Amino acid sequence: MDEQEARRRFAEGRVARMATVGSDGAPHLVPIVFALDGDDVLSIVDAKPKRGPELKRLRNIEANPNVALLVDEYREEWERLWWVRADGTGRVEEEGPTRDRAIELLWAKYDQYRTAWSEPVGAAVVISVHRWRWWSLAGPQA
Amino acid sequence: MDEQEARRRFAEGRVARMATVGSDGAPHLVPIVFALDGDDVLSIVDAKPKRGPELKRLRNIEANPNVALLVDEYREEWERLWWVRADGTGRVEEEGPTRDRAIELLWAKYDQYRTAWSEPVGAAVVISVHRWRWWSLAGPQA
Repeated sequence: MDEQEARRRFAEGRVARMATVGSDGAPHLVPIVFALDGDDVLSIVDAKPKRGPELKRLRNIEANPNVALLVDEYREEWERLWWVRADGTGRVEEEGPTRDRAIELLWAKYDQYRTAWSEPVGAAVVISVHRWRWWSLAGPQA
Repeated sequence: MDEQEARRRFAEGRVARMATVGSDGAPHLVPIVFALDGDDVLSIVDAKPKRGPELKRLRNIEANPNVALLVDEYREEWERLWWVRADGTGRVEEEGPTRDRAIELLWAKYDQYRTAWSEPVGAAVVISVHRWRWWSLAGPQA
């Protein structure tokens, strides 16, 4: 796997796991749906979360913008295992063109936003990736 | 989903994603195979990793033992999405009965360790879970 292939597999992933760090130094981890736009990973949270994991990730990113995202595929045939990790810097965009772009790309990637999702959406979470890492049996990378 | 069901789904997961935090305050994220033993999540790394993500997770845990683990299932039917997160404290066991137990349970859960894996294994990574969190359409939790 080279970086081009790593980015392709990441972009095609249907779910990523996003790790942030709390002010207590503990990691926080949630699955997200996302779209890759160049080196930006775009996602969006529900409108006005008052509690729970959505609010937690926003607070964490505001206090510590370091974010790691992982796309991987588990197979029982271990020789086919692979993962791609994106390390980056997160920010929250309450409104504006980047949020509009997130909605455009997410709606294009996931029919569910149109067909199965009636909740109003809120801020975009944008991760600017500064490092791609990947692993498969072709060889590990940090 | 109640805590008993959350633990059951977590234990039956074939892969978890493990987040640790580096000394630079950035999260690190890898998929792991694991076994749940009471409130301990047991996994094992390759023998003598000299570089790469396996060594990174060991160094992170030694410097900051906070660990988050996530088991989730992505479905295109979003009404079936769920996840279970285990927050805990990690330690590395180079040898001894806990490492022996990890090997016993991992070999029992994953045939692949017997049939498809020829690499020597090294230290056990043990996460003592102090908080279980879960989410499904039945309702969110932090």
